Amino acid sequence: MLDFSFISPTQIVFGRNAEDSLKDEIPKLGTKVLLHYGEGSIKKIGLYERVIAALKQANTDYVELGGVIPNPSLALVRKGIDLCRKEHVTGILAVGGGSVIDSAKGIAIGVPYSGDVWDFYTRKTEITTALPIGTILTIPAAGSEASTGSVVTDEDTQSKFHCGSDLIRPVFALLNPEYTFSLPPWQTAAGAVDMLTHVMERYFTNTPHVELSDRLCEALMRTIISNTPKALSNPNDYNARAEIMWAGTLAHNDLIGKGRQDDWASHDIEHELSAQYGVTHGAGLAVIFPAWMKYVHKVNIPRFIQYAVRVWDVPYTAGEEEETAREGIRRLEAFYVSIGMPIRLKDLGITDKRYEIMAEKAMRFGTLGGLKKLTKADVIAIYRQAEQV
Amino acid sequence: MLDFSFISPTQIVFGRNAEDSLKDEIPKLGTKVLLHYGEGSIKKIGLYERVIAALKQANTDYVELGGVIPNPSLALVRKGIDLCRKEHVTGILAVGGGSVIDSAKGIAIGVPYSGDVWDFYTRKTEITTALPIGTILTIPAAGSEASTGSVVTDEDTQSKFHCGSDLIRPVFALLNPEYTFSLPPWQTAAGAVDMLTHVMERYFTNTPHVELSDRLCEALMRTIISNTPKALSNPNDYNARAEIMWAGTLAHNDLIGKGRQDDWASHDIEHELSAQYGVTHGAGLAVIFPAWMKYVHKVNIPRFIQYAVRVWDVPYTAGEEEETAREGIRRLEAFYVSIGMPIRLKDLGITDKRYEIMAEKAMRFGTLGGLKKLTKADVIAIYRQAEQV
Repeated sequence: MLDFSFISPTQIVFGRNAEDSLKDEIPKLGTKVLLHYGEGSIKKIGLYERVIAALKQANTDYVELGGVIPNPSLALVRKGIDLCRKEHVTGILAVGGGSVIDSAKGIAIGVPYSGDVWDFYTRKTEITTALPIGTILTIPAAGSEASTGSVVTDEDTQSKFHCGSDLIRPVFALLNPEYTFSLPPWQTAAGAVDMLTHVMERYFTNTPHVELSDRLCEALMRTIISNTPKALSNPNDYNARAEIMWAGTLAHNDLIGKGRQDDWASHDIEHELSAQYGVTHGAGLAVIFPAWMKYVHKVNIPRFIQYAVRVWDVPYTAGEEEETAREGIRRLEAFYVSIGMPIRLKDLGITDKRYEIMAEKAMRFGTLGGLKKLTKADVIAIYRQAEQV
Repeated sequence: MLDFSFISPTQIVFGRNAEDSLKDEIPKLGTKVLLHYGEGSIKKIGLYERVIAALKQANTDYVELGGVIPNPSLALVRKGIDLCRKEHVTGILAVGGGSVIDSAKGIAIGVPYSGDVWDFYTRKTEITTALPIGTILTIPAAGSEASTGSVVTDEDTQSKFHCGSDLIRPVFALLNPEYTFSLPPWQTAAGAVDMLTHVMERYFTNTPHVELSDRLCEALMRTIISNTPKALSNPNDYNARAEIMWAGTLAHNDLIGKGRQDDWASHDIEHELSAQYGVTHGAGLAVIFPAWMKYVHKVNIPRFIQYAVRVWDVPYTAGEEEETAREGIRRLEAFYVSIGMPIRLKDLGITDKRYEIMAEKAMRFGTLGGLKKLTKADVIAIYRQAEQV
């Protein structure tokens, strides 16, 4: 086990009517709040009105900025920073999914910074301060409601980059599974893939002696795998939605990654698909992660066997170790197909092979990967692997 | 799944040389620290000197109070409160095991309170403020390094009571598994029992639809079960010690108990053994918990079957459900015997049957238990169950 430090200071309020706690939590955001949201779905589900009522009840002044799109844009982050400075905003309330929260995090670090916010994402500078962020989550997937990370896209240069710090973990996160009943099947399934991948990016490691975190990872994976089909067949199944929502938070607050080297190559490789083609992140991961597994699994066959046996109940068969390892990958792909996710690039309508430029961009900050360090040639080979039936 | 709120704000620093972070963390305790510890083992292992050096390096003023005993005493807590008031102490550094940390928590709530600190433990008043507490953990067992609870014993009345609040979670916890190498086998094993019981008090619930938290509980139990024998046979096995230490923290920071009703009857029933006979808490739990299981398991056979199958790999056999459930209990007892723990009252040298008085005291605050509400007669029956071979 590797040495680590860990803190997860987000106040979670989980359950039916979790949003009722907003009036108690909102003072943590100071005297004037930016209400940040997406393209209006929070108005359709009645959440917008409840939030406004709670802000008024708490006598909290606010300004609004909606319009966050999936793969949130740098342009809107910059607009939010300008607005917050002009309006003397002291904290940000993000109501929506991971894109809204990631956008809020960008604004939160940009407001007190004298330079351009993109500096954080291009690794020119480190996060040293941020406005406090609170969230009401409506799409379980990204785990941003308790995570250290933010991913933002510069549409001008088709660059989708990440930055992170404990300083941008939200101070509170209100999670009501009922607000996820109206999620369409595609988003429910893509969210499950995103969560599973957050776990698997940590699970596939060469660090020895990581029994507890392995088992915590397996607990999360099995829960997501068993509850996603239930939520798809009965969108109003409260308990299935609740299991998924809580799993999504714990998949990415980094508890399960402590003491072990993680990987994240697949995330960087997928980000280029999203940046180039506007692909839904989870759907892109459903294609890229299995391709990555096929390409790298021989580096650590025992770990892929453990995954197959413990997560997918593949029987261990002496003398057929590699086959056992590959059967785990096949089961993951079969699961993705069963929940309506793509598993090949052509399923995403991608056939024009921009592999060279995507690999170039994915490698911008150096080599990728923990389980196996990847070169540009490896990344191109993984995109090619993702073509194959 | 039940609604819940959760926050775990303790900064964990884990690994070799974790105590080196003391100089960075100590400012969280303010300008003058009470250094609180036990009967001197921290001097034997060289930790005391390192702590003093770090306090000096950080220019932090301090006073000392050692002498905390297992089942920490109310008298010393009161002495600590007087000392802190006189010396204008702003925060408490607890160096030791759960008893030292629980004692520190008592002092931390007592200092700013105008009445007697025992009021918190007798439920006459609620915790509304506390001095900040930091810890360097040397005995993994109680989980107090990140928990909300404190258990203190009034030796005059032989009363061992609990109080709790998010306000007494330590602000930092430094965990170096190397400091547990010197723990004797008895304390290593009793610690494992304490941790396992913290998990089982949450695991045995009637709340339906708790898949994720069930699986997290199982992850912790399996990890403790597999690593304790390794630590006993090779006390310097860093990785086994590390798995146990991290499991002990996560067994009781309440992450795994969220969304489900917990029980805690066994803890209250055991506390009377400790109060009456000075029994080591973990050793008492090794006797009481299996007795409780035998007494209550028919209330929820499916849950005891799940425990047997998933934690102890007992094969599920149709038509033999009750037998399967009981086999899980037998495997737990066999495990306790294998690590040198008692499983009957006589193994603790207790034969004088003070069941009436202990049951009376255990019930002082009303009925006990979540899986099954227990009356005084039930508690007496559980003590009797604990006699039997």
